[in-house]
Amino acid sequence: MDVKIACAQIQIEPGNPEANTRKALQAIAKARAAQVDILLLPELMVPGYLLGDLWEQSAFLQDCEAWGREIIAASEGLCVIFGNIATDPAKVNEDGRVRKYNAAFVAQDGKLLRGGLPYPFISKTSLPDYREFDDSRYFHSIAKLLPELGPDVTIEDLVKPVSLTLRGRELKLGVLLCEDGWTENYHYNVPELLKKNGAQILCNLSCSPYTFHKNRKRHDLFVNQSRSCAIPLVYCNNVGIQNNGKNVFTYDGCSCMYDARGEMVTDSPAFQEDLLVSLWNPDTGSIQGERGLQEPLSDAQEIYRSLRYGASLFLDQLGIRKMTIGVSGGIDSAVTAAFYVDILGPENVLLVNMPSQYNSDLTKNLAQKMAEALGASYAILPIQEVVDKTILQFSSTDIHNYATGNDFHLKVTPFAAENIQARDRGARVLAGLASLFGGGFSCNSNKAEMTVGYATFYGDIAGVLALIGDLWKHQVYGLGRYLNEEVFRREVIPDEIFKIKPSAELSAAQTVGTGGDPLVYPYHDYLLQAFVESWNKTSPEELLGWYLEGTLEDHLGCEKGLVRQLFPDVRSFIDDLERWWKLFCGLAVAKRIQAPPILTISKRAYGYDHREAQLKPFYSRKYREMKALALGEQA
Amino acid sequence: MDVKIACAQIQIEPGNPEANTRKALQAIAKARAAQVDILLLPELMVPGYLLGDLWEQSAFLQDCEAWGREIIAASEGLCVIFGNIATDPAKVNEDGRVRKYNAAFVAQDGKLLRGGLPYPFISKTSLPDYREFDDSRYFHSIAKLLPELGPDVTIEDLVKPVSLTLRGRELKLGVLLCEDGWTENYHYNVPELLKKNGAQILCNLSCSPYTFHKNRKRHDLFVNQSRSCAIPLVYCNNVGIQNNGKNVFTYDGCSCMYDARGEMVTDSPAFQEDLLVSLWNPDTGSIQGERGLQEPLSDAQEIYRSLRYGASLFLDQLGIRKMTIGVSGGIDSAVTAAFYVDILGPENVLLVNMPSQYNSDLTKNLAQKMAEALGASYAILPIQEVVDKTILQFSSTDIHNYATGNDFHLKVTPFAAENIQARDRGARVLAGLASLFGGGFSCNSNKAEMTVGYATFYGDIAGVLALIGDLWKHQVYGLGRYLNEEVFRREVIPDEIFKIKPSAELSAAQTVGTGGDPLVYPYHDYLLQAFVESWNKTSPEELLGWYLEGTLEDHLGCEKGLVRQLFPDVRSFIDDLERWWKLFCGLAVAKRIQAPPILTISKRAYGYDHREAQLKPFYSRKYREMKALALGEQA
Repeated sequence: MDVKIACAQIQIEPGNPEANTRKALQAIAKARAAQVDILLLPELMVPGYLLGDLWEQSAFLQDCEAWGREIIAASEGLCVIFGNIATDPAKVNEDGRVRKYNAAFVAQDGKLLRGGLPYPFISKTSLPDYREFDDSRYFHSIAKLLPELGPDVTIEDLVKPVSLTLRGRELKLGVLLCEDGWTENYHYNVPELLKKNGAQILCNLSCSPYTFHKNRKRHDLFVNQSRSCAIPLVYCNNVGIQNNGKNVFTYDGCSCMYDARGEMVTDSPAFQEDLLVSLWNPDTGSIQGERGLQEPLSDAQEIYRSLRYGASLFLDQLGIRKMTIGVSGGIDSAVTAAFYVDILGPENVLLVNMPSQYNSDLTKNLAQKMAEALGASYAILPIQEVVDKTILQFSSTDIHNYATGNDFHLKVTPFAAENIQARDRGARVLAGLASLFGGGFSCNSNKAEMTVGYATFYGDIAGVLALIGDLWKHQVYGLGRYLNEEVFRREVIPDEIFKIKPSAELSAAQTVGTGGDPLVYPYHDYLLQAFVESWNKTSPEELLGWYLEGTLEDHLGCEKGLVRQLFPDVRSFIDDLERWWKLFCGLAVAKRIQAPPILTISKRAYGYDHREAQLKPFYSRKYREMKALALGEQA
Repeated sequence: MDVKIACAQIQIEPGNPEANTRKALQAIAKARAAQVDILLLPELMVPGYLLGDLWEQSAFLQDCEAWGREIIAASEGLCVIFGNIATDPAKVNEDGRVRKYNAAFVAQDGKLLRGGLPYPFISKTSLPDYREFDDSRYFHSIAKLLPELGPDVTIEDLVKPVSLTLRGRELKLGVLLCEDGWTENYHYNVPELLKKNGAQILCNLSCSPYTFHKNRKRHDLFVNQSRSCAIPLVYCNNVGIQNNGKNVFTYDGCSCMYDARGEMVTDSPAFQEDLLVSLWNPDTGSIQGERGLQEPLSDAQEIYRSLRYGASLFLDQLGIRKMTIGVSGGIDSAVTAAFYVDILGPENVLLVNMPSQYNSDLTKNLAQKMAEALGASYAILPIQEVVDKTILQFSSTDIHNYATGNDFHLKVTPFAAENIQARDRGARVLAGLASLFGGGFSCNSNKAEMTVGYATFYGDIAGVLALIGDLWKHQVYGLGRYLNEEVFRREVIPDEIFKIKPSAELSAAQTVGTGGDPLVYPYHDYLLQAFVESWNKTSPEELLGWYLEGTLEDHLGCEKGLVRQLFPDVRSFIDDLERWWKLFCGLAVAKRIQAPPILTISKRAYGYDHREAQLKPFYSRKYREMKALALGEQA
């Protein structure tokens, strides 16, 4: 007997159960027309997943359940497995709000089939509470339900496959939800429990955001899972975007199927809707896809496609059709500008160069050259006059002290003048022009700048979206080359922009050519990455230790020889380390708190993926001892 | 036998285990001098609690454990119960990082005493995952540990009192952590389990943030707990501030002791360090405090003291000694200004009036009058010239379209001109002046404005802290009166400021007297409060239902008769409701994402207490049906 099984990789709009239900009903109609027997839809496909505290709104929950009933009713003639929120109005979660489960419903001919729970649905067992996931905030867990059911009930009683009768034959479907398949660190191994209880196939419904290189890990996991359980595994993920306020995540879908020997036989393309259909033979455990496998994406393709997809949908959602972008002649703004031209078309992009007295002809010309190459609209709005006026107004205004009765004046320092320029560009010119041109304006900060707060509040860290806010500087360069070579297939970003030394051009000391950007990216990109992206956060204690034992470059993954060249002695290393650590833990946190949403691609992005409090920089006792010893020895 | 038991209500600095350990050692020395037998210190007193993902840093965890060992070593001659992080390096949490418990250590004479766990510490059993709490993100739970230990171990085996031998007598201490005492919605009732296992006293270590009126609820809970268990209850909480990035929380301490009959016999003052000492008779369950009970605080006192304490410590932490505040002559800026003068002294406060052509002499004079009354420094920085220059620059700049080869101009709309003014005040003048005056500048937005985004990006929603960002407009007025009457004891905020109708004065249509502020606070304060602060978030579905059945005012708690007066027909009600709902769910979310940290006092503050995604406004199907019916009937 061959069973036609399919994954509907649909685009989910979080918080819009009506639209999502419509998508599901369309997918069901399409599957029915293709004579599909079993159709999988993604996890939480009715409500969406990243909804913040919308989960606390009763009207929303009831609406999702009502829309879910329409999907159940539409299961005439096939088996539909879909994710939705499920409530138990007779019980509460631990926060006292109505009991909620992240659930999978298995419907056939308008009726629900059961697994092992005292409910007509399957609940997610493993609830992730890391990165952007707050499952325990919203959903009750099987681990918490189990003791409520008394000492006679075991986990084996609860985690059971669903029995489905198809053309007279009983099939046992092991239905699980997303994290239930990520078994590494959970006590309950859901795939194993399902297999032990007779499951003939694993059906994993997911709502799993794209992360750079994550699919490799997922693939290894699924190969092992289907192989060790010796049954096929079908994985259905959604596409679209979802956000948690500070982070915008893309969902790549990449639904796929593995046979009982652990071979991936068919998969869906990334970042587009799809109906992935195959024939499953429950006797042999074979899976035969109607299609073969997708071409794998290169790293650059992966990043480009995720960012393009994410930014397009995010702007759509906000109703933004036009973007205003400050272009300095540097790489960050150049890549951002080219990207928005790619997404919105040149007619919807306004590039703005905002020179002061410190900006060189070189960078001004590069900005203009790029606007021309992109065919975008271009304006030059010098800021010097308003900056001068501001400095004059500040320094000439009489301030009256009502306590003493005296007047005094304030003095504008060179550092203050730098920030006046940055804010003038961001909050006066760009925010203002964007409101006239229509749409929003772009935040061009990269992840290295975000890490150390190398940006001015209400200046260059402002905007509607930080498109490249999760990209290290070397990734920005890579993306720029990709845009030139593969997307535009011509030099829209002038080659000189890749070559000039980065500079903020905010003072006479910061000029193009001589530099002025204190970050040496071939080293600092990797140092800063260790601060935020390593699984167990790397701190000065480890870093100094590695420096002293000569293994720092290996640990960071940066170019060999660089460390010795940059830091000939331990003092210079420590000074540099503490300079950035202090900013990373200090003022940069304050800036990130007020930063725009970041389009997230890495395994750890600023926002609510990496969460942070404003604290004083922490140096462990061990670090301080190592440092004293190292500096003492040298002295 | 009388046992001297004490709570050390110490001020905790999150992320500074060294400083916190020093505090603990001082408290231990003080307790020893006072011949205390058993000393309680707060939950997580070594690391602090709200640390974001600092919990992922190995060096930090190891440091906290090392400092904890110093506290254990200092327990010579008494029993010290303190909160710290505890790791099990042989195991992992469900995220794959080292296993961590939110633990209580019971030390006597340098040795650790055990409860029921296979560890030399007590773990928190009930992990909160609501509001600002993310316990499951960081800490492993007893509920998850239990099944790991095999079928023969029960919860009764794990949750056991600690046996302490004191002067030859065995005492059973029921040690629990914070949420373990909030038993309402958890399956495991920790106080009951401890009592069942022989506990003679409940020792609750907490790190519990201040929330308006929360202590009333806690009191009721503790009365019932000590009464139903018929043993005394000692509650030790810390003082200080902690933050999660977007919210600054104050900790009021208010440590207290209940006897076995449920009588509160002694307590510590709010928002200050204290050593609360009493004599406990384990035979009778009596508790005799060295002191009696604190005077209860009025609502206004509670709010004032929490805000003052929170803002003072937050500025201290950031190293800010001076504040620059924009003063418009309206109530929000007036209250903020008076508050900062109270905190920092008039010599450290710069008040800035920034008139445009739309500002009235009335409000300008009120601002000046207030500066004089406060004895602060005062400056007038007109914005008209730069605003005009900006508008001229925008409208006269040639924008070149490189696709068509044509030039075009942008037109400055009246709405755009309003926002240009707001940003000029915030990002140009206030941010600039603050950097010269030293310190930061204040965000004066109140909670009603935060709710609907009645503020301009990088304009009036900018600043270092939203001091009154968690206060509804009527609370702002109340605080203003309190400042005049109880703090300054003179009219520092001119009486006229309480009387004029609020207006943004951003256009000819928005003028003082005629108004211009579209929010009618006696109604909208309560409507908006229902959006965000009700336990199960109130949505248009409930609100329209209540309007239609005539119970809206009862549900909202606003003035009687107001609804009929404001909304004579259902259409006007719906138009108003949807206007604010759309903003609350839409643009205001985007603004809150980039807003400063909010000093939190309510049971639900914007930031990372109330979490939110950028979504389209949600209207349930039931709401849409009710609306169609209601409007149809009328038509």
